[in-house]
Amino acid sequence: MTTLYDVAALGNAIVDVIATASDDFLDAEGLVKGSMMLIDDDQAASLYGRMASGIETSGGSAGNTIAGVASLGGRGVFIGKVAQDELGDVYAHDMDAIGARFSGGRLAGGAATGRCLINVTPDGQRTMCTYLGAASQLGPEDVDAAIIEAAATTYLEGYLFDPEDARRAFAKAAGLAHASDRLIALSLSDSFVVHRHRQALIGFIDNEVDIVFANEDEICALFETDDFDVAIKAIGDRAKIAAVTRGPKGSVVLAGGAVHEIEAFPVQKVLDTTGAGDQYAAGFLHGLAKGYAMDHCGRLGSLAAAEVIAHYGPRPQVSLRDLAAASGL
Amino acid sequence: MTTLYDVAALGNAIVDVIATASDDFLDAEGLVKGSMMLIDDDQAASLYGRMASGIETSGGSAGNTIAGVASLGGRGVFIGKVAQDELGDVYAHDMDAIGARFSGGRLAGGAATGRCLINVTPDGQRTMCTYLGAASQLGPEDVDAAIIEAAATTYLEGYLFDPEDARRAFAKAAGLAHASDRLIALSLSDSFVVHRHRQALIGFIDNEVDIVFANEDEICALFETDDFDVAIKAIGDRAKIAAVTRGPKGSVVLAGGAVHEIEAFPVQKVLDTTGAGDQYAAGFLHGLAKGYAMDHCGRLGSLAAAEVIAHYGPRPQVSLRDLAAASGL
Repeated sequence: MTTLYDVAALGNAIVDVIATASDDFLDAEGLVKGSMMLIDDDQAASLYGRMASGIETSGGSAGNTIAGVASLGGRGVFIGKVAQDELGDVYAHDMDAIGARFSGGRLAGGAATGRCLINVTPDGQRTMCTYLGAASQLGPEDVDAAIIEAAATTYLEGYLFDPEDARRAFAKAAGLAHASDRLIALSLSDSFVVHRHRQALIGFIDNEVDIVFANEDEICALFETDDFDVAIKAIGDRAKIAAVTRGPKGSVVLAGGAVHEIEAFPVQKVLDTTGAGDQYAAGFLHGLAKGYAMDHCGRLGSLAAAEVIAHYGPRPQVSLRDLAAASGL
Repeated sequence: MTTLYDVAALGNAIVDVIATASDDFLDAEGLVKGSMMLIDDDQAASLYGRMASGIETSGGSAGNTIAGVASLGGRGVFIGKVAQDELGDVYAHDMDAIGARFSGGRLAGGAATGRCLINVTPDGQRTMCTYLGAASQLGPEDVDAAIIEAAATTYLEGYLFDPEDARRAFAKAAGLAHASDRLIALSLSDSFVVHRHRQALIGFIDNEVDIVFANEDEICALFETDDFDVAIKAIGDRAKIAAVTRGPKGSVVLAGGAVHEIEAFPVQKVLDTTGAGDQYAAGFLHGLAKGYAMDHCGRLGSLAAAEVIAHYGPRPQVSLRDLAAASGL
């Protein structure tokens, strides 16, 4: 089967509402800095009412990754669900406009398009409260077999372990991918997601996943340890490829028994870390589709992450392809 | 009557959709760089479909001015009309969240909240196509007499010379303001607006306006001359106060026969000129409310304009009050 896509991604289709906030605001709202919390529509309305003036922009973890793949010159397709409302129009438009493809449903007469209320503190950390809305209705019927069979890697966003139907969509995608000798990648997304679904995630990794993306907190949560080295060894034993990001300390890529330590790219000032992990995955998977060596893939991930944390918003603002070329990657 | 507001502003309540574009794109779309064009909903859908991925943020000329007034620590109120839809929620929320007040209607079951499709070229110029939607339904019934009577200056956005009902709202506001010894300010907004409504604007300036804001193109269009000095002399003869902006050349403030030349504030890199004139007016009117001298008012305008053109988006991203204090203003 011809490879039509470098990466297909299943994720929550979410419009980000990004505003700046003080640490005191987080405390007053009872929010844990750096976390992602699911909220319902009443909570969303109430928190939004107290947040600062913001900007709205297409987001969602896996959607951001597809935006990164497209910015690197790769072929990406995003599978997710929005509503037939104004923000749904924005989401689908933005995916088309970056040269990627939007596949999946437009929910009519039900929940609104999902949104993520992101409060960015002066240290650049983002604290996210997500109203999933239509995104949470993603199910197996939204997964187009022809897309999965034609994608070098299908990337799954760990946040979708929360809704039952989405997990069925994951199972369908994994079955289709492996029947066509394609790869499955999984992002652990968030340490609270890992705590909620630890056993299911480990089972899924053992049986279905070729490539695991995680950050330090998430990988430690997965193996219930505070010792990063213990967690790294454990994931190296279970996954064919694992890429674990460590913020300013760079990342560690494990593959075939080898361990590659990758440095972070220098950033003048970290403004907003939203999308850092998503862009790392984009760079890494783009490198993989190009057949690059593991450390080269990791450096592409670092490059893409560095671009996105130097500005507000979760998607690249300049061509990552040009940036990679300028850095000899 | 107690002064509750430094500035009340009547304008189009518009959500900006900001994307980057090439000069070739403007040519292909038949758009005149730097202009503002009114479009209907079909044209909006069609152009949006071809635009790059963007961000959405509350805008509208007079709304941006009120945001600037609030950022300077002043008391602002915005009078405009949005729909009862998602973008209408965003608009009203953002006005509250910046510490200003949103007054005016929420249209139900009619046109959607207005939006402005802004293509920003690499030279930082913005080319705007505006679908007015609900904003164009602003009428005299939306003007709360108690607000106008309690505002030191009521600021009118020239764009509202297009819809008939809004012009009636202007007349009502002007009558109320002058009956309470308050000031009326008018922004000419756009040279095409001036061409469309030249005689009406001159009549309105002669009879109702105390302070005129314009840029070079607009003031030359008003007096049908290519000679800036001729235009400056003409407006100086007609308006009590006139402030004319000249981009990097600064601005000229005319008042009581005196001419003040104000330098532009230095900007490292101009990213997006959207909102420059709006913020100039905010700084100037804030200074006026404080009782500052004309050149001081002009310098506050320059400072506010410099902040907004150094980033994407039409409203201040940092506290203009702090910025002014740091610059000794």
